[in-house]
Amino acid sequence: MASPPQATVENPRVLPPNHTHTTFAQFIQRAASVCSPDNVTPTICTPCTTRGSSSPRQSYVCPRDVGEVQSILRLCNELTMPIWPYSAGRNTGYGGTAPRVPGSVALDIGKHMNKILEVDVEGAYALVEPGVTYMDMHKHLEETGLLKELWLDVPDLGGGSMIGNAVERGVGYTPYGDHFMMHCGMEVILPTGELVRTGMGALPDPTASSRSDLRPDQQAGNKCWQLFNYGFGPYNDGIFSQSSLGIVTKMGFWMMPNPGGYQAYMITFPRDEDLGAIVDIIRPLRLTDPLSESEQDEIAKKLKLGRWIFYGAVYGPEPVRNVLLDAIKGAFLSIPGSKFYLPEDRDEPHSVLRTRAKTLQGIPTLDELRWVDWLPNGAHMFFSPIAKISGKDASMQYEVTKKRVREAGLDFIGTFTIGMREMLFNRQDEEQKLKARWPIRQLIQDCADRGWGEYRTHLALMDQIANTYNFNDNAQMKLNEKIKNALDPNGILAPGKNGIWPRGYDRNTWAI
Amino acid sequence: MASPPQATVENPRVLPPNHTHTTFAQFIQRAASVCSPDNVTPTICTPCTTRGSSSPRQSYVCPRDVGEVQSILRLCNELTMPIWPYSAGRNTGYGGTAPRVPGSVALDIGKHMNKILEVDVEGAYALVEPGVTYMDMHKHLEETGLLKELWLDVPDLGGGSMIGNAVERGVGYTPYGDHFMMHCGMEVILPTGELVRTGMGALPDPTASSRSDLRPDQQAGNKCWQLFNYGFGPYNDGIFSQSSLGIVTKMGFWMMPNPGGYQAYMITFPRDEDLGAIVDIIRPLRLTDPLSESEQDEIAKKLKLGRWIFYGAVYGPEPVRNVLLDAIKGAFLSIPGSKFYLPEDRDEPHSVLRTRAKTLQGIPTLDELRWVDWLPNGAHMFFSPIAKISGKDASMQYEVTKKRVREAGLDFIGTFTIGMREMLFNRQDEEQKLKARWPIRQLIQDCADRGWGEYRTHLALMDQIANTYNFNDNAQMKLNEKIKNALDPNGILAPGKNGIWPRGYDRNTWAI
Ligand SMILES: Cc1cc2nc3c(=O)[nH]c(=O)nc-3n(C[C@H](O)[C@H](O)[C@H](O)COP(=O)(O)OP(=O)(O)OC[C@H]3O[C@@H](n4cnc5c(N)ncnc54)[C@H](O)[C@@H]3O)c2cc1C
Ligand SMILES: Cc1cc2nc3c(=O)[nH]c(=O)nc-3n(C[C@H](O)[C@H](O)[C@H](O)COP(=O)(O)OP(=O)(O)OC[C@H]3O[C@@H](n4cnc5c(N)ncnc54)[C@H](O)[C@@H]3O)c2cc1C
Repeated sequence: MASPPQATVENPRVLPPNHTHTTFAQFIQRAASVCSPDNVTPTICTPCTTRGSSSPRQSYVCPRDVGEVQSILRLCNELTMPIWPYSAGRNTGYGGTAPRVPGSVALDIGKHMNKILEVDVEGAYALVEPGVTYMDMHKHLEETGLLKELWLDVPDLGGGSMIGNAVERGVGYTPYGDHFMMHCGMEVILPTGELVRTGMGALPDPTASSRSDLRPDQQAGNKCWQLFNYGFGPYNDGIFSQSSLGIVTKMGFWMMPNPGGYQAYMITFPRDEDLGAIVDIIRPLRLTDPLSESEQDEIAKKLKLGRWIFYGAVYGPEPVRNVLLDAIKGAFLSIPGSKFYLPEDRDEPHSVLRTRAKTLQGIPTLDELRWVDWLPNGAHMFFSPIAKISGKDASMQYEVTKKRVREAGLDFIGTFTIGMREMLFNRQDEEQKLKARWPIRQLIQDCADRGWGEYRTHLALMDQIANTYNFNDNAQMKLNEKIKNALDPNGILAPGKNGIWPRGYDRNTWAI
Repeated sequence: MASPPQATVENPRVLPPNHTHTTFAQFIQRAASVCSPDNVTPTICTPCTTRGSSSPRQSYVCPRDVGEVQSILRLCNELTMPIWPYSAGRNTGYGGTAPRVPGSVALDIGKHMNKILEVDVEGAYALVEPGVTYMDMHKHLEETGLLKELWLDVPDLGGGSMIGNAVERGVGYTPYGDHFMMHCGMEVILPTGELVRTGMGALPDPTASSRSDLRPDQQAGNKCWQLFNYGFGPYNDGIFSQSSLGIVTKMGFWMMPNPGGYQAYMITFPRDEDLGAIVDIIRPLRLTDPLSESEQDEIAKKLKLGRWIFYGAVYGPEPVRNVLLDAIKGAFLSIPGSKFYLPEDRDEPHSVLRTRAKTLQGIPTLDELRWVDWLPNGAHMFFSPIAKISGKDASMQYEVTKKRVREAGLDFIGTFTIGMREMLFNRQDEEQKLKARWPIRQLIQDCADRGWGEYRTHLALMDQIANTYNFNDNAQMKLNEKIKNALDPNGILAPGKNGIWPRGYDRNTWAI
């Protein structure tokens, strides 16, 4: 099947491969009979690309419950319709809600399925549906008084969904910052429509057998589903992360019990060349907090900031915090010119330290959206390489990246977490868009040549990045493809995601 | 194919399904030409079961390098030979080196491949081959002076292999006690012989391309292979744990940087009924250290112990430790009659606290082998259920288990970690062996009826336990089978492991 459609009047670009207006209309009609017409928004297939027009660029289907997700998947298999699921659709920097294969139907899982199903203080966990955002969860903890007991870990922006972020292996800043590692138990619909619960969820709750009137997804979960992640036998959860092997409809998360105290801080360093020394100090302290950089010394001076800034927090009762803070100061303040600040020491408007002080205790904010307001209509594309935590490697990575971004004449914001970089461009400016892509394509290669790879990427770069993970004649990709074809024989779920093309799609034809 | 062989003269029980002496001899001969005859030990197929005799119960093949593992797997596919890999073969309590399908060839991966490939202090990780035991690693750290920098996490017994324990998702007692969670990067041979490196290992090291004389497994790994676990795309590592989908030939482990101080302690509680209160105290303290029980009050008194004992340790510099110890004492000593001890307070020989004081700082011991010396020729079978960390659930689980073990007339040692139980029997006494199985079969059902499942199990119980994880008409098992059949189309790798039967094996015929 499947080669890229040509944009002609008869077959506009927005139609999925191998579909005609007639077969597409048939899908829309049947999807509407599953989810009700209100929950199906077809694209208007005008004979041009819809970019810049107000008609939707994708067709959207919003299932109302898990049973409807299953029905839609079965329908997609029947009609070989590619589908692209998302939870909140705030995947900014990585492609938003756009699919890899043009014309794929967008499946908005979170619109109706947005309930916090459980927050358990004793077990320090939550069970949520796809639409639950960090903001929602924070509000819930606040309103129920549970914030006293449980802390959330949030990414920089609080508008995304807990499930969407975690399945993409997003990160936050507290000790619970590896969101996928801190998940416990999933409910997943396989591409062919079967519903699986992973970990202890595979062991039925004793109450379930007496409720045969309920669909499986409505049955109470095992009491240990959110307590013990592995269950018995192969641990499958990982294959549903950054993947196209299933649609997650419920997911459990461990939450941090209130650590008994908290102190955010910031340390500034005057010189660009300090980076190496800073990273070497961080490593043995085993801190994984972010470093930020402001591109211009002037700004740095005006804002009373350094060229490099280290943000961090310590957790625990006061005597514990004091010991930790002393160790941190002792180590960092050895760098000449460095300065230590607490949030109350910074009075500028939009203080990043004050924002971080929130983020580092799990209070979601939208403050960092301001990063992209630097340009009118600012947009951005993330470039997120992984490198060794060593001063030498960090400095080298910083130099390599800055060089390419400058060559492209773009602005550059660099932050290190375990290594993340961000790049700004004006999204309505085609030239700027291409400008942004060029250095990234170069950078992917520059990095691969040094043994660095990316942890996550924008749609447009998935193939290229997947292709850098090519050890032993692409052995990993061949494994991924085998599993993909076994679980999704018709290749309907998110084809092309992260470079994995189902049988029937020719990866060369589809390359962008 | 494959129904269980009948033990006759022509086809003794030790031959694998669908093999004759001739085809088996053919395999042995070809395996010997791969690994050299010294490394192949055929079973002597006397026309009786070999139990009790001195002839080997299995045929063993000991590949000398990764290339030979690949060749043996290809040979197994060609001749449909079931094979059962292990690393050190110390899987005591869970079946040792025995395979699930009688007659399967044992693949001893660790005999020759037993090198510590790397210990990196800056990154706090190690990369090892299958034969490396906890003892080996400890010795290495001691001899190289690295113990000052890096701590190991060890299970109760130090004779097992780091890889064998971790792939079975074994546990230890320090903050790095979840050995599978703390692994980072694998090299795996798929059942069909392909070599895959997971995570960042999939991204070639830049030096590799210049060394085309090396086999892929001999190429240097990516510098971030042991630093960042996920890499890009689906995270596959979990499917190689408790599984029959691959043979792990290298694996990375995160190690605990020396926490800057350490204090082990023990608290005793006088009464059986204290268990509920103890568990309720542990939960909010978020401690995951083990609780041990001595079955008899007399022993307890004689040894100056209580009916329940809590062992733990705090890590960090002294002021941090003091804060933590105060919180722990404050919480536990509210239980009447409870007593707090440091290692120096206990002078009995074989002090469990002194053993734990080692284990809790990652020094491997074999002391707990004494647990099974209680009976002459003592052996044991682990029963390891998972329950909610709540006083009520722990007490209930304790009662349910003790009742069944007593009904069977066996001794009982109970320890809680996240829930582990152990049971003693005399391994040369057939009656005792059956006695040990009966309560466990009962217990599996008793537990499933309450929503509790096991995290790991003995060979003899794999089918029954897998079958309790049967949510939604065994959806998880069907997923496991799909993946198994996709990756191992001839069903040669560890068929039946954890209840997963490849296509061609009828699970009902093979049930035990
Ligand atoms: C200024 C700025 C700062 C940012 N900081 C961070 C940060 O600190 N950490 C971080 O991780 N990210 C960060 N991001 C990136 C992004 O905003 C977040 O990751 C966000 O949480 C992703 O959006 P979402 O949760 O709505 O995911 P969605 O858009 O809902 O989903 C993302 C993708 O995941 C998959 N997916 C989603 N839901 C499901 C499902 N139910 N089943 C199967 N697959 C699914 C789909 O492929 C989907 O395209 C930042 C972005 C910006 C602009
Ligand atoms: C008194 C006592 C106390 C114990 N305490 C603990 C404890 O605290 N924690 C704990 O976890 N266990 C404990 N055990 C159980 C057991 O001793 C350990 O788990 C031990 O480490 C397992 O043996 P091994 O590492 O040699 O594994 P192996 O016997 O080498 O392997 C075990 C299984 O893992 C799989 N496997 C092994 N290597 C590979 C490979 N390279 N590729 C693919 N699959 C592979 C195979 O299925 C194999 O059968 C205890 C046992 C006893 C008797």
